Amino acid sequence: MPVYEAPIRDMQFLLHDVLKLQNYSNLPGFADADKDTIDAFLEESGKWHRDVLAPLNRVGDLEGARRNDDGSVTTPTGFKDAYKQFCENGFGSLAMDPEYGGQGLPVTLAYAINEMSSAANQAFAMYPGLSAGAWRAIHAAASDEQKQKYLPKMTSGEWTGTMNLTEPQCGTDLGLIRTKAVPQGDGTYKISGQKIWISAGEHDMADNIIHLVLARIEGAPEGIKGISLFIVPKFMVGDDGSLGERNGVSCGGLEEKMGIHGNATCVMNYDEATGFLVGEENKGMRAMFIMMNEARLGVGMQGYAAAEVAMQNAAAFARDRLQSRSVTGVKAPDKPADPIIVHPDVRRMLMDTRAFVEGARALTYWAALHEDMSHKAPDEADRQKSNDYMALLTPVIKAYLTDKGSKGANDSLQVFGGSGYCEEWGMSQFVRDVRIALIYEGTNGIQALDLVGRKLMAEGGRYWQTFFAEIDQWCADNKGTNDDLDAYIEKLLAAKGELTEATQWLGANAMANFDNAGAASTDYLHLFGIVALGYMWAMMTKEALEHEGSGDPFYKNKLITAKYFFDRVIVESSVHLAKVKTGTSTMMELDAEAF
Amino acid sequence: MPVYEAPIRDMQFLLHDVLKLQNYSNLPGFADADKDTIDAFLEESGKWHRDVLAPLNRVGDLEGARRNDDGSVTTPTGFKDAYKQFCENGFGSLAMDPEYGGQGLPVTLAYAINEMSSAANQAFAMYPGLSAGAWRAIHAAASDEQKQKYLPKMTSGEWTGTMNLTEPQCGTDLGLIRTKAVPQGDGTYKISGQKIWISAGEHDMADNIIHLVLARIEGAPEGIKGISLFIVPKFMVGDDGSLGERNGVSCGGLEEKMGIHGNATCVMNYDEATGFLVGEENKGMRAMFIMMNEARLGVGMQGYAAAEVAMQNAAAFARDRLQSRSVTGVKAPDKPADPIIVHPDVRRMLMDTRAFVEGARALTYWAALHEDMSHKAPDEADRQKSNDYMALLTPVIKAYLTDKGSKGANDSLQVFGGSGYCEEWGMSQFVRDVRIALIYEGTNGIQALDLVGRKLMAEGGRYWQTFFAEIDQWCADNKGTNDDLDAYIEKLLAAKGELTEATQWLGANAMANFDNAGAASTDYLHLFGIVALGYMWAMMTKEALEHEGSGDPFYKNKLITAKYFFDRVIVESSVHLAKVKTGTSTMMELDAEAF
Repeated sequence: MPVYEAPIRDMQFLLHDVLKLQNYSNLPGFADADKDTIDAFLEESGKWHRDVLAPLNRVGDLEGARRNDDGSVTTPTGFKDAYKQFCENGFGSLAMDPEYGGQGLPVTLAYAINEMSSAANQAFAMYPGLSAGAWRAIHAAASDEQKQKYLPKMTSGEWTGTMNLTEPQCGTDLGLIRTKAVPQGDGTYKISGQKIWISAGEHDMADNIIHLVLARIEGAPEGIKGISLFIVPKFMVGDDGSLGERNGVSCGGLEEKMGIHGNATCVMNYDEATGFLVGEENKGMRAMFIMMNEARLGVGMQGYAAAEVAMQNAAAFARDRLQSRSVTGVKAPDKPADPIIVHPDVRRMLMDTRAFVEGARALTYWAALHEDMSHKAPDEADRQKSNDYMALLTPVIKAYLTDKGSKGANDSLQVFGGSGYCEEWGMSQFVRDVRIALIYEGTNGIQALDLVGRKLMAEGGRYWQTFFAEIDQWCADNKGTNDDLDAYIEKLLAAKGELTEATQWLGANAMANFDNAGAASTDYLHLFGIVALGYMWAMMTKEALEHEGSGDPFYKNKLITAKYFFDRVIVESSVHLAKVKTGTSTMMELDAEAF
Repeated sequence: MPVYEAPIRDMQFLLHDVLKLQNYSNLPGFADADKDTIDAFLEESGKWHRDVLAPLNRVGDLEGARRNDDGSVTTPTGFKDAYKQFCENGFGSLAMDPEYGGQGLPVTLAYAINEMSSAANQAFAMYPGLSAGAWRAIHAAASDEQKQKYLPKMTSGEWTGTMNLTEPQCGTDLGLIRTKAVPQGDGTYKISGQKIWISAGEHDMADNIIHLVLARIEGAPEGIKGISLFIVPKFMVGDDGSLGERNGVSCGGLEEKMGIHGNATCVMNYDEATGFLVGEENKGMRAMFIMMNEARLGVGMQGYAAAEVAMQNAAAFARDRLQSRSVTGVKAPDKPADPIIVHPDVRRMLMDTRAFVEGARALTYWAALHEDMSHKAPDEADRQKSNDYMALLTPVIKAYLTDKGSKGANDSLQVFGGSGYCEEWGMSQFVRDVRIALIYEGTNGIQALDLVGRKLMAEGGRYWQTFFAEIDQWCADNKGTNDDLDAYIEKLLAAKGELTEATQWLGANAMANFDNAGAASTDYLHLFGIVALGYMWAMMTKEALEHEGSGDPFYKNKLITAKYFFDRVIVESSVHLAKVKTGTSTMMELDAEAF
């Protein structure tokens, strides 16, 4: 069975050396997260995820969530107890608002813990993960009364939350929503309709489930401008917080999925369920986007977290499995064959994944710090810059990190050879589970459109201009300190030059025919992802060089992986630029019927 | 449920227009396969695969092959009857030797039929597929008496065959085989040991199963030089062909796999089973390689066949699914949204897959024609050249076509969005089923090593030199006839130039440190695959241009896809060259324990 060891050393490197959280003690909550506190927390959390949560991963895959005849849903053996521990350990409430019982610690730290949960058990991690998304939407958009009513129990984890967007006829295009809301005259609404693919829509781990539901109030405008957001609790909640009668919402079925079997993916039927409007009528999309944007960062994390755990197991297998001799001479003369980790092509798969995962982790934590800054920085300009960066990088993190994370999990399976294809080794599950991350919270194609269609154009291009200028500035500031770093800076600037050229190409060609932007979008996003990871690798190289003298082999290994990234990964940029520039004509010429 | 329509028009284009089978009527069997015969056969076969075999694909996934308490194995509902029809239709014996009841038709035609079987139902197709591999090994290496005894019933499909190589401690490295053979003094051997991952090792579709087993005769030399090949029938066969008593071979269990559930992947226990030596003692690997090399072409075909069927379903979904409006203006004003095929990024996934599948099909049939030539060409020089090409291209076809086929199936799933992740739509099965093709018959990494380590160096480089020269000659012969073709030829020659440079880099660096070849191997193979597909697309372009005037839209569509290939696919060559040239140092520097 696969194992998981949280990469604590790498997390420490990022939080302490690269991002230097200790320098942000002026921000609320950061002073409570000093180095020793963080280290102790990572250590304890790592143990729990290794010993308790990871062993339940395969259980979840085999048993799956099961719907009972009465519509209730039973989670896999051990999930309920693990969830109780998860809440007691405070893993879910780390960065939540202290006003509602949260710990108010940095989001950046919460991301490290979330990564552990996702790597150890993606299907499990989605229960608190989705709940946190609902929490954020309520926190951002609901009334004080609603917040007081729902948030404390969602913070403690006694209640969980869901997001109800999709219907059979609409996924990406939420303007097509049909679920209707009928005002009752007492401030409440009756919600009726069917939602599908609702993760954690029904389960047995919490006392109540707070559904956030997008619906159309009778007489509302057509399309996206007539969508409102409602709170629909599974059990009605009294003013004293007590649970009342069951609301008219139920789970009509579970999907049979490729993976994440342990998570209940529900058909949710709303049958005149009582709902409470969140925010204003017809402004539901705004709150939903808050939730979705932060959820997208979490999905990106799922991508590299799956690659991390799969890679750990692939490396262990490659050290253990004896097969053939090294072509450069016998390496294990006392054994019947050499361990396969001596073969370069096995290394290639491990190193590709490693260079990706470490860069992806850096980018995700870097974004998380900007999430902290966007809320907590005292200076408005800093908050705005962080907001810009979050907006710009969210689609890149969601799509690039899941595309490459899926590849990393697949390559790790490949290291196992035939064993990788046999379910008992657990590698198939990593590949099957992570596959959904390329789809949900907006497919990766939608992320690419969001990047080229919205984020590049927003505020006259301010987001990307600021980000590109930051890279330039960093490179200028750090040039000339070390030969290796200089060489990497040169490669980073070359890739950034290609990204700039691609951005200019879009500027020149998208207006004439916006299909040019669509045709270029995924390659543009990948090019962006490569440059963003290159920036992270440059920053990591700088820190590793500064600490190399400490004798800690961690830094030497970091530099080896950095070299791999700049030798073999960043070179992928040019092909994406070439594809960006091919435009729409090639892509759209074939008749739809000719396929 | 997914559907499958055999791409008969594209098959006809390749067989008639590009490969011009009609020009080979001097070869045995080719005169029997004139254009009308081929067309009628493709038509009939296409119908059967669509109506009978494809609908069983999901049945096989859901039910799987089941082992009963007595060790017998029951195939999924409908498989047995379909297999009977498959045999009656002569689909399995098409290209087999008439001396043993085969139809003696071109292998090239048989490949078209095999492609249909694999696309319609990969798990099913493996039963006759593996049997054909065993047939070929017996045909190539067994005595006349053995051939007379086993081949006729294997030709008719009444009996099937298997390949028994892998043991728990050895997959790639067959020198580690422990299964032992004890001579009985009467010319027979007692075979004892355990084999794993034996596809179709036990099932209920045939009266007898002829196992080909690699084993070590007592006292044989260590390693690969002490391996012999044995026939071990499930039921002993009398001299009159009658079935006798059950032999000491049984299925000890089935693997739970990621996919191909309908195929029985067996643990086979040999307990003093009676075996008959094939060929000479200790020369078992030779016959096994004959079987394996041709099997590898079949696996490459599985790669693109899965992409073909997945793409067909993705295109149908994309024409049907309404979601969002085209960014260049409403396309379906009478509908609530436009079909998603109007979105360029959806097109990108479909066109990527299409350009790959059509090129891959051409390369596979081209190789199949060389397989025919290698056996049947009257001229020794032609036979040798075809043998060279087969040897050179086999690892490329196996690995490149499965890597990209897996990507095509994955991209097709992605077109479905969330539905792609739900098993009922069937896209997950295509992805899960084809995943094994990157692993079995030698992992794709092993193919890459075979290419750089054996095939490039064989006969002083004759294989690749001949192939590269053929491309140059073709380009020289066809330059100046059409502007588009000229542009494509230029791009093909540029990519071929990069491949030449990569080949020279290997020549210069592999001798100094053979790990340089290992480090470069997969990228080299991909570069080779791109050039090989480029050559096919150039040939297809030429033929499509010549027939464009016919008014048949097929040719226009072929040219659109050719443009896509030369605009957006062949550009991937340069990044592989860059990676080839990074060498081993980056790859091997990290301590094994540091992973």
